[in-house]
Amino acid sequence: MKLSPAAAAASLFSRQGSIDYNSAPPNLSTLANSSLYSTWRPIAHVLPAYGSIGDPCMHYTDPSTGLFHVGYLHDGASGATTSDLVTYTDLNPLSEPFIRAGGINDPVAVFDGSVIPSGINGTPTLIYTSVSYLPIQWTIKYTKGSETQSLAVTTDGGKNFTKLPHGPAIPGPPFAVNITGFRDPYVFQDPQIDRLLDSASGTWYNVISGGVHGEGPSMFLYKQYDSDPGFQTWEYLGQWWHEEANTTWTEAGWAGRWGFNFEVGNHLALDEHGYNAEGETFLTLGAEWSYAPIVPEVSDVREMTWVAGNQSLENGQLKFHPTMAGKLDWGRSAYAAAGKIVPSWSQASKKSGAPDRFITYLWLTGNFYGTLDFPVNQQNWSSSLLLPRELSLGYLDVVDNSVAREKGSWRVESESYGTITLAMLRQEIAREVTSSFKSNATNTITQAGGSISTTQPFAQTPLSKRYMLSAIITFPSDARSNHALKAGFSILAGPHEHTDIYYRFSNESFVIDRSTSSAAANTTPGIDTRNESGKLRLFDVPIDTGSAIETLNLTIIVDGGIIEVHANGRFALSTWVWSWYESSRGIEFLVDGGEVEFGNVTIWEGLVDAWPERSAGF
Amino acid sequence: MKLSPAAAAASLFSRQGSIDYNSAPPNLSTLANSSLYSTWRPIAHVLPAYGSIGDPCMHYTDPSTGLFHVGYLHDGASGATTSDLVTYTDLNPLSEPFIRAGGINDPVAVFDGSVIPSGINGTPTLIYTSVSYLPIQWTIKYTKGSETQSLAVTTDGGKNFTKLPHGPAIPGPPFAVNITGFRDPYVFQDPQIDRLLDSASGTWYNVISGGVHGEGPSMFLYKQYDSDPGFQTWEYLGQWWHEEANTTWTEAGWAGRWGFNFEVGNHLALDEHGYNAEGETFLTLGAEWSYAPIVPEVSDVREMTWVAGNQSLENGQLKFHPTMAGKLDWGRSAYAAAGKIVPSWSQASKKSGAPDRFITYLWLTGNFYGTLDFPVNQQNWSSSLLLPRELSLGYLDVVDNSVAREKGSWRVESESYGTITLAMLRQEIAREVTSSFKSNATNTITQAGGSISTTQPFAQTPLSKRYMLSAIITFPSDARSNHALKAGFSILAGPHEHTDIYYRFSNESFVIDRSTSSAAANTTPGIDTRNESGKLRLFDVPIDTGSAIETLNLTIIVDGGIIEVHANGRFALSTWVWSWYESSRGIEFLVDGGEVEFGNVTIWEGLVDAWPERSAGF
Repeated sequence: MKLSPAAAAASLFSRQGSIDYNSAPPNLSTLANSSLYSTWRPIAHVLPAYGSIGDPCMHYTDPSTGLFHVGYLHDGASGATTSDLVTYTDLNPLSEPFIRAGGINDPVAVFDGSVIPSGINGTPTLIYTSVSYLPIQWTIKYTKGSETQSLAVTTDGGKNFTKLPHGPAIPGPPFAVNITGFRDPYVFQDPQIDRLLDSASGTWYNVISGGVHGEGPSMFLYKQYDSDPGFQTWEYLGQWWHEEANTTWTEAGWAGRWGFNFEVGNHLALDEHGYNAEGETFLTLGAEWSYAPIVPEVSDVREMTWVAGNQSLENGQLKFHPTMAGKLDWGRSAYAAAGKIVPSWSQASKKSGAPDRFITYLWLTGNFYGTLDFPVNQQNWSSSLLLPRELSLGYLDVVDNSVAREKGSWRVESESYGTITLAMLRQEIAREVTSSFKSNATNTITQAGGSISTTQPFAQTPLSKRYMLSAIITFPSDARSNHALKAGFSILAGPHEHTDIYYRFSNESFVIDRSTSSAAANTTPGIDTRNESGKLRLFDVPIDTGSAIETLNLTIIVDGGIIEVHANGRFALSTWVWSWYESSRGIEFLVDGGEVEFGNVTIWEGLVDAWPERSAGF
Repeated sequence: MKLSPAAAAASLFSRQGSIDYNSAPPNLSTLANSSLYSTWRPIAHVLPAYGSIGDPCMHYTDPSTGLFHVGYLHDGASGATTSDLVTYTDLNPLSEPFIRAGGINDPVAVFDGSVIPSGINGTPTLIYTSVSYLPIQWTIKYTKGSETQSLAVTTDGGKNFTKLPHGPAIPGPPFAVNITGFRDPYVFQDPQIDRLLDSASGTWYNVISGGVHGEGPSMFLYKQYDSDPGFQTWEYLGQWWHEEANTTWTEAGWAGRWGFNFEVGNHLALDEHGYNAEGETFLTLGAEWSYAPIVPEVSDVREMTWVAGNQSLENGQLKFHPTMAGKLDWGRSAYAAAGKIVPSWSQASKKSGAPDRFITYLWLTGNFYGTLDFPVNQQNWSSSLLLPRELSLGYLDVVDNSVAREKGSWRVESESYGTITLAMLRQEIAREVTSSFKSNATNTITQAGGSISTTQPFAQTPLSKRYMLSAIITFPSDARSNHALKAGFSILAGPHEHTDIYYRFSNESFVIDRSTSSAAANTTPGIDTRNESGKLRLFDVPIDTGSAIETLNLTIIVDGGIIEVHANGRFALSTWVWSWYESSRGIEFLVDGGEVEFGNVTIWEGLVDAWPERSAGF
């Protein structure tokens, strides 16, 4: 979908019309363009004024303003600034791009990139994947020269990134490597690598995601050559990380599969508080794979994964070995996370008092990576980013048992007298966001909880489909042996539709049952109602009286069509739910196979309009 | 100059008009477009129907037809086929190009390339320099990515070379080398290198010309990787040959200077008969340099050089070391030679009975590399190729004296009892060309020679300005000590103009004195009348009665504005002479400072129309 700004604006003003959300939907693809603009549009999330959004990328905090810049693919790449991580200002009117394809290096497309905030001549400097040939996919022969890595700089505060008048900084993949992909350069500094490689302090590194046909996915590491201030020359340091094709961290499924090709790899270092260059090395990355038989140009699965590990020199080459891995989000449509250091001196952090953080945004595709025939023209937009998340190194003291000792998305940090401390990736919605949802709530519902063993509706129904629900669910001590037990909520519920979100102990899985989530799915192609699920282990934790199952601490965000489920600071499952009826706003406790305790059940309605400066609904 | 074919044709039909070649010329730049089309246009040389011609390149013999294809830069690259090396057939009407710039790899320009005759899927496969950024010159900082090497194939007999839909086969120069140039890939096979490197038999190699800032000119060697039948991957084998910046084979000037940047390097192997893969390794190459102080974007001098040498492994890398070097042509406008194997099975060689040959074409720039304001529009064409030359390894038995032992454009092959055999590059106008000039002569003038000590006119004046003159000049035995002696011819001579061509013993130099060669130079800018000169040593050769100075065996080609002077199978000096007057056709013996013997003085007039299929004068 590509409309001129004027055409897009015109079509937006004519939207909505006389659609009746109290009756069964027509085939939505027969409706006028833009008529569904507001139906499922999130208000608190990052997405452009109109049109499609692709991968988030190219974020940075501008040293001269302290503003955090959030970028995303959109007719090239576009973006916005934020002084609080809650509200955003488009860099350009109508979210027009700050860089477009069509130059000498990128005649076909601009793919993901990353920014050196004080780069060439001290100005923000972008290195991005410049695309010359398509198609590109791990399932087909790689077209030589299709992906190169090029430079652009901004001198107007990020409104425009001007491509430098020379060829790609990285003109191709490593020599004679039969690549599956070679994109999404992620630049970073790392004093730990500086020491290992005896590099100049402050050297920039660059990890490029991809893989090798017949061998498996890889992260290719590069280094700013000879401290080149123009960043024109990057020295190849080898396959920093490689996994055998179609393998996995554990077949138990805690971290998905490594697949055949990596994408969107971000290199970061974390401690308990957030970003720390001397902390533990993490990556967030996308993994692509398919079920057999592999069909050319079809990637069945994309998984958004994280991994932590150690780096060391092997035969002179720096190599990475995972120590733990997990999923950053379990939603089948949640992918392409892009994060960046948000320093304590950023405007947002100065206000909130946050330390140096690593904040990441995921993409939530609205038409399953372009494979579903969703009525995009009727909506005049497609896809969104998810709420920003703070990443840190999490620790959890648990009972030393087989549940904790199993290989999963955690590792044993230390042990003492029957208790072990697990390390894991901690991820939470950015503190400013949840604070603002609470402080700006237009309606707060406090629902009594207590012991519940059957399905029962909330006393009060939310007024809208935009809220944050939080609750604590305490499972009985015999839950681990009660394989029938599941508990959660049915939301967006009414006579015709409901979406069930629950945790099932029998397989430690979180489920979003979308099978009856949308009446529109009965009339319209492309409305995805496949269930979503993810794995979460609740550990046994020591309490005064012995041990108990860790409580399930739930936060559910409903923002138009977006559902984000966050649990225990280490689990996220996000998806789209296209509920149709105006009346589908009910919430019910959902319990089966036993009894659980619900506590602290609160709904903050209204969220926050992330785009206060967009006029006329943009 | 770039006209549409139709416009060019239209302007050609209106050419000439009422120009009076019996009166002093006006300022030629005031004349109508195309009015000078025929004035200096050669007929026996290769040039397009109209417009500019740049470097020759991309020649090959088509294995399926036996036709030799001669290519040259012309709005991209264009070419013609020949079955006899005398007459040519344009590949496309009006010499339209077989490849043009403007693709993904070559948005700005197509530079020189070379052809693998049986390449991808057995079809002729071109690797050429695809240009993305300009300017490019050794005098300025190199723009990263400006020159890459890309592939194209023809499946229609060379009328079109289709660019392969992938990025450059060689996406950039060697890593982190601060290049002065990186262009003109020349592909070749070499069983000697196969053995040295233990390569598969028949491996293709590729030498790319250029240099390194602050270090000097280099030839960068590549090898077809892993016998890749798609020629997509070329392995870098290092700087096969490097010379220190601004040095020379000998300051005595026998081989010009190596300069700062190499261009158009051709790799070949020769024996006494012509091309032989097991023969001696030669290169022809262009060298660029300037007088101090070097001015950005100005290359004062381009020299067309040859070099022979040895290859050996040094620390695992194949290195080339010259054993002798010289000039392929001494004309300041003669440059960019491009040659190719012409096998014995080619149509031309089957007719003439020639063995495998290496035949090269030089470029003769008509406006001194674009720096002179020649009235190009009035001419509607610019520049030409020179006549094809056969290269071979030449031997000459000479008296063993200091004249022969000096370091020059020869080396000592063997010695025995006061006689030494020198080796050198032998070059002759292709046998078919000189034969055809004789057999097709419309007028043959045999001029009596004998001892001559003053200037005196020929008995007969040629009817035209198109002929081949041949003569033998025998110098007296005391010539080497007679520093005043010079001998040759004054040609294109009349009351107002003459061009003097002579050999001056005092400095072993051949001179073409153009100072009074063109009355047009008095009225029109851009008519170059600087003298030309080159170095030729006449050795002492053993004769029955002792020794004698080697005779000077001269062949002079006059074809419109082109003068080619060839001597003794090892010397060439070519240039433009823009004689104006119709009457400037006279020839005189030119002798000063002594007496010489002229013999075998013959003129074959008329030459051959190389383009019999071009209609209406194209």
